[in-house]
Parts: sequence; C-alpha cells; structure tokens
Amino acid sequence: MENKGISKAVINRLPRYYRYLGMLLDQGVDRISSGELSRRMNLTASQIRQDLNLFGGFGQQGYGYNVRKLYDEIGKILGLDCSYSLVVIGAGKLAQAISGYFGFEKRGFKIEAMFDRDPDKHKNDVVGGIPLYPLSDLKAYLSEHVTDIAVITIPAEAAREVTDCLVEGGVRGIWNFAHTDLDVPDSVTVQSVHLSESLMQLSYKINH
Amino acid sequence: MENKGISKAVINRLPRYYRYLGMLLDQGVDRISSGELSRRMNLTASQIRQDLNLFGGFGQQGYGYNVRKLYDEIGKILGLDCSYSLVVIGAGKLAQAISGYFGFEKRGFKIEAMFDRDPDKHKNDVVGGIPLYPLSDLKAYLSEHVTDIAVITIPAEAAREVTDCLVEGGVRGIWNFAHTDLDVPDSVTVQSVHLSESLMQLSYKINH
Repeated sequence: MENKGISKAVINRLPRYYRYLGMLLDQGVDRISSGELSRRMNLTASQIRQDLNLFGGFGQQGYGYNVRKLYDEIGKILGLDCSYSLVVIGAGKLAQAISGYFGFEKRGFKIEAMFDRDPDKHKNDVVGGIPLYPLSDLKAYLSEHVTDIAVITIPAEAAREVTDCLVEGGVRGIWNFAHTDLDVPDSVTVQSVHLSESLMQLSYKINH
Repeated sequence: MENKGISKAVINRLPRYYRYLGMLLDQGVDRISSGELSRRMNLTASQIRQDLNLFGGFGQQGYGYNVRKLYDEIGKILGLDCSYSLVVIGAGKLAQAISGYFGFEKRGFKIEAMFDRDPDKHKNDVVGGIPLYPLSDLKAYLSEHVTDIAVITIPAEAAREVTDCLVEGGVRGIWNFAHTDLDVPDSVTVQSVHLSESLMQLSYKINH
C-alpha cells in the first residue's frame, strides 16, 4: 500500500470513514454502495468514490464496498493494526477522562503510567487502575520503558518544560492538550487538541 | 467590520493569533512586527500580513502591529466580547474537566448547569460549584433559561437522543464531544471535538 500523494484533507477524513464503517459492522452491514454511504456521511458519492479509490478501490459496480475489508484497510493506514504504549502527564480530571476511556485501549493505545508533579494529592498510587508516579521519575521511567506516545494534560508552561524530557526519552508522538504549541524535532509528531480554540471557533460560527 | 470573504482557513487560524497576542500582552509587549510574530508563530511574515490585513490592517510600516488593538479586534470577530450561557450534558470526568477550566469563564463562557441521567451517583447536587440536575429536567430548564451553548459529554447514542431537546430548547451552538455526528437544523452550529479521531491522526502521522 503506497500512501504517497494522499492529501492531508483525505487523511483527516479517514478517521470519520473508519467510524462510520465500524458502525456499519456493528449493525451487521457487510456491503454498502457509495450512494448509501454518502447519504449517511453527508458527503457526495463522488467524493467518497474519489477518496476510497486511493486505497485500492474496494468498491465494485453493482456490489458496493466490502465494509470489513475497507474498515480493516483504513485501520491499517491509520496505524491501528499496531499497538502503542502511552504515558499521561498530569493526573487531573482531563487525564482521568482520557485514561478512563476504554475505546482507546480497544484500538491499541495502552496507557501504562501517569505522572503528576504532586502525586500525593491523589489518595493512592493508582488512578483508574493506572500506576501514578511523581513527574521527577519520568526520565528514569522512559529510559526503562519504550514509550510511543505521551499525552500532555498539564498547563502550558509545565507542558513546554516536560517536552524536552519526552523527546530525549524517545517518545514518537505527543498528544497535546496544553494551551500552547510545543517545540519538537522533526522526528517527533505533535497532535494538539486546543479546547479553547475549538470553543472560540464555535462562538465565531454562532455569531456569523 | 465586514467579514465576508474571510476563508475558513483564516478563521481557523484566528484563535491561535488570539492566543499569541494574549501571551504578548501578558509579557508587556505593546507592538510587534510581522517578522517577529512570524518567528514566534512559525508562519511566514507574508502569511501573517495577508491574514491580518483582512481585519483592518493594524500594522504600520516601521511600527508593527498594535498588540492590544489587534487582540481586541480578533476577540470581537471571534465573538469574545459577548457572554454566553452554557449547560453541560453529562457529569463525568470530561464534563468536570471542562467545567473546572476557569479560562472559559474568563472568556465569557459561563456554565450555568450540568445535567446527568443519574445525578444520584454524585454525592451532592453541585459539581465543582455548578448545580447538577437530572437529564429529565433539561426541557423545563431550557424553557426557563436562555441558553446559548450546550456541551455534550455523553456517549454517542444518548447524545443523538438529547440533541432534539437542545434544538427545541433554543440552543444556538453545540460543543460536541460525543463520538458521533449530530443532526441539527441550519440555525444551530455544531463544533465537534472527536478525541478518538485526533488520536488516530496522531498514529497515522507517527507511522508515515
């Protein structure tokens, strides 16, 4: 499977295709036409055919798409056939919400540890079944445990401080919830979820 | 101020400009050149000049941008000079993380109430200072309280069920954290934060 030439816009649509195909599987649907998928996803049928043709074109005239094959193929492209070790930086409500969401583990994202500046404020050393360590142990932890992804849920300044330690510790990706951009080398990917910015976009759209 | 003709891409960049300008104000910086802003924001200076010219062109040759004026103007465009009444649907960890983030209230987003299917599971009727009601009271609440935005933090199926009630109750915007698309009339804006899809984009980027 060669993914060269696939635009960022298509990549951004893939998780949504994956979600809809997963729902179809849950409903016992094993094939679907581009027309029917277009109705459900609120995209044009030609957009769907164009997007999905990029991934081997599993659609057949008069048959439609094989839902399972397409679901598995998109899952592979998204890297969901691999498993990932995660650490969560911070142990507040957002950290707990993320680490308590079992859907992530089902997709191969396994949270192995949480780190907090002040773990004593939590009643014990385990939050939702995940071991909690002091942030000062992060460097040592990363030197002993191969870690693919770090989830940052701490405030902006602390997030910028911890980033170097994560990069030096060999983390490949950072899922960043802090209200800041992070400075990393090209070998590390940052995916940010800026909640404030999302809310501002909502208020913009309400007003225009 | 006429915003016609401002592209979606520019609108999506506005909250980030707003964030950087806010940081500059905090640092006591009252003017900045497009070159310096470009270095900080990792955008080209010509991109910045092009974007900001759309909003009245506060930059002056040899002087740069007036940070306060630009910050206020972008805030107005984003609708941050208004205040908004919010309700949060759900009272789990994510709902608590969102309602506990004081940055939103500072920007005019005031969470007035939370609703949960089973409020008895919480020890009292207030979560982080916000009154908690049973979801069955939502319709009556909305008929008595003008509510601008609803934040949905409940699972997909329940989210789809509650949407009609929110629309009928006159909500103008929905900030949707449920792992589903929502069906609303054109008069209502949905801004979704699909956390699973963000994580899948990260795993895609790690692998390519």
